[in-house]
Amino acid sequence: MWAELLPVGRSAASGGYRRHAWNSADAECRAWFREQAESRGLAYEADRNGNQWAWLGDPRAGGAIVTGSHLDSVPDGGAFDGPLGVVSSFAALDELRARGAEFDRPLAIVNFGDEEGARFGVACVGSRLTAGVLSREQAYELRDADGVRLPDAMERAGHDPAAIGGDDERLGRIAAFVELHVEQGRYLTEEQPVGVAGAIWPHGRWRFDFHGEANHAGTTRIEDRRDPMLTFASTVLAARGRAGADALATFGKVAVEPNGTNAIASLVRGWLDSRAADEATLERVVAQIGAAAAEYGGRDGVRVELTRESFTPVVDFDVPLRDRLATTLGGVPVLPTGAGHDAGILASAVPTAMLFVRNPSGVSHSPAEYAQEADCLTGVAALADVLEDLACR
Amino acid sequence: MWAELLPVGRSAASGGYRRHAWNSADAECRAWFREQAESRGLAYEADRNGNQWAWLGDPRAGGAIVTGSHLDSVPDGGAFDGPLGVVSSFAALDELRARGAEFDRPLAIVNFGDEEGARFGVACVGSRLTAGVLSREQAYELRDADGVRLPDAMERAGHDPAAIGGDDERLGRIAAFVELHVEQGRYLTEEQPVGVAGAIWPHGRWRFDFHGEANHAGTTRIEDRRDPMLTFASTVLAARGRAGADALATFGKVAVEPNGTNAIASLVRGWLDSRAADEATLERVVAQIGAAAAEYGGRDGVRVELTRESFTPVVDFDVPLRDRLATTLGGVPVLPTGAGHDAGILASAVPTAMLFVRNPSGVSHSPAEYAQEADCLTGVAALADVLEDLACR
Repeated sequence: MWAELLPVGRSAASGGYRRHAWNSADAECRAWFREQAESRGLAYEADRNGNQWAWLGDPRAGGAIVTGSHLDSVPDGGAFDGPLGVVSSFAALDELRARGAEFDRPLAIVNFGDEEGARFGVACVGSRLTAGVLSREQAYELRDADGVRLPDAMERAGHDPAAIGGDDERLGRIAAFVELHVEQGRYLTEEQPVGVAGAIWPHGRWRFDFHGEANHAGTTRIEDRRDPMLTFASTVLAARGRAGADALATFGKVAVEPNGTNAIASLVRGWLDSRAADEATLERVVAQIGAAAAEYGGRDGVRVELTRESFTPVVDFDVPLRDRLATTLGGVPVLPTGAGHDAGILASAVPTAMLFVRNPSGVSHSPAEYAQEADCLTGVAALADVLEDLACR
Repeated sequence: MWAELLPVGRSAASGGYRRHAWNSADAECRAWFREQAESRGLAYEADRNGNQWAWLGDPRAGGAIVTGSHLDSVPDGGAFDGPLGVVSSFAALDELRARGAEFDRPLAIVNFGDEEGARFGVACVGSRLTAGVLSREQAYELRDADGVRLPDAMERAGHDPAAIGGDDERLGRIAAFVELHVEQGRYLTEEQPVGVAGAIWPHGRWRFDFHGEANHAGTTRIEDRRDPMLTFASTVLAARGRAGADALATFGKVAVEPNGTNAIASLVRGWLDSRAADEATLERVVAQIGAAAAEYGGRDGVRVELTRESFTPVVDFDVPLRDRLATTLGGVPVLPTGAGHDAGILASAVPTAMLFVRNPSGVSHSPAEYAQEADCLTGVAALADVLEDLACR
């Protein structure tokens, strides 16, 4: 399975993946999913929101156990974030069949569409729509960088967007959802390469607008300047100073106006991504960075505007399910994660759990993201154990 | 004249000017120049490089006194940088005629093409080509952001690019060039609103490439990061710390990869514009900022590459001509400038001087750039005095 997927949507220039919602690489991934389903005699369907399902047993029976993840990537992403969960799901089913497992519930493998939000700017579109967290109207307003609307992109890719929206009936037939994912940090060890998710840290995105005054870089005296690049720079360092074990704070995106070499900037926009172990800490960290920015703004004659662009509260995964997984797997570590996942979206509607597989590089959203084959196989065995416990006699 | 020029190429959104080489606003400005020339009975010509000339007397006679500036703008530039010099030249000629001045040499008013380099990235293209500082081959390779080649842009605007290149014969017929320009700082005062340029500071552009490692902003531990945004931020502050009365150092342009909100950057590029009173100081300042960047790179696990993209040595204007202007004007201040000008290019081939007119905002390359009418009229009178001294009986 891995060999077939590896070349799809990979940029020769960067070595990274460009599998973005409804583009041609995404279509190849989706065709691959369907082939995997049908070659195993599973009933294939795409739901109203474009998520793909492969069913063993009767989808209408209810009480289903569902596993899976996503196949799309961030721009120049790695091979594992998403695909490892889908490939491991099929592999775990093969393993269970090899064990001669007898299923007493329906089992489904799912590929959620547009998890990364690389094209339309909103993450987890497939699961958000299904859970009713993203409305049909909101989804219809989404546009990519070329101005293509989401429903038009869906239609061009052969998916009818007419029926997108909440799908409570489908969710009501699911007893539990388990998503396996490559770890996006370096918590897991060679001795314990598989862990269970405790919670998803609350996280959000804040935009800092630093308003200065455009001027000539070659003629304006230092004391006459109102240079927002300075305020931005000091704020970046303040954010790093505040980050630590209990909170992350990152400026990874910047936009400058007029962005000319010989012009003092009139406006620097910096986007802060921040996450913390709990919401109170997150609020405190962002407030501290905001206060520092305002103080530097006073120093530099720069007006600072702070806008919260998105916020996702803490997700606590279902505790009985998490404990059941930990017991089945014999006391594996329970670890928090700072990243959003489809599992985090579904957790509000369905008992949900996550398994993580060790990533020795600790790197994610980059071609350097990595998992060793032995650890992947341990992950498949763990997922098979979990599914056997949940879905078999 | 001012009322006719003001609306040309002005953006309603920003209030700034977008008169870029060979675009439609530039064509309107050029048509305006030709009308001004012809309505005064001056002989109009466009030279091989697209610079416009308005001649009083025989262009072939030699020993000409030339004045003028440029009409194009930086992106969202102000109304005065360039046009004040051209408008003042026509107004000074009107003043001299009103005085009944008798010319004993040819006089020309010039509009140099593409001074700001906003479209093709190289400043002073018209004067550089004429002075042979930019070769025909180099000019043919220039492209704008849409990939349009300079010669094609010229041709579309009705100028035949076949003959562009050095024009020693033309320069050989010029005895002196005087450019009047709005000041781009706040050196001049209400009491002394006109000054003479001493020198143009040496200046250049250096690109800093900060190579880090792309990673997930929500999952990567602080201690596992190699975040080039931090190194960039520290370098911006180091540059500001080094700047002062003897040197300017500005980061006004930034490019980030992948520039995603939830991604630690893999690469931050920052462009340093630096200028100093002399070349030794400039070299020392840039070396100090480079050393600081390397040190911060070591701290952050970030590799720093430093590339000099352009460099212009100091321009000392012709001392006898400068002294003659100062004497004519009765002891006006002599001030340095950090900005490049067509006069700086011509200075290598022709005795050249500059007059500056007070800009109370101190702002340049921005819609806030400004000169008061009374100061502009003082500038016109000063230019008329200078031209009368140089060109009349």
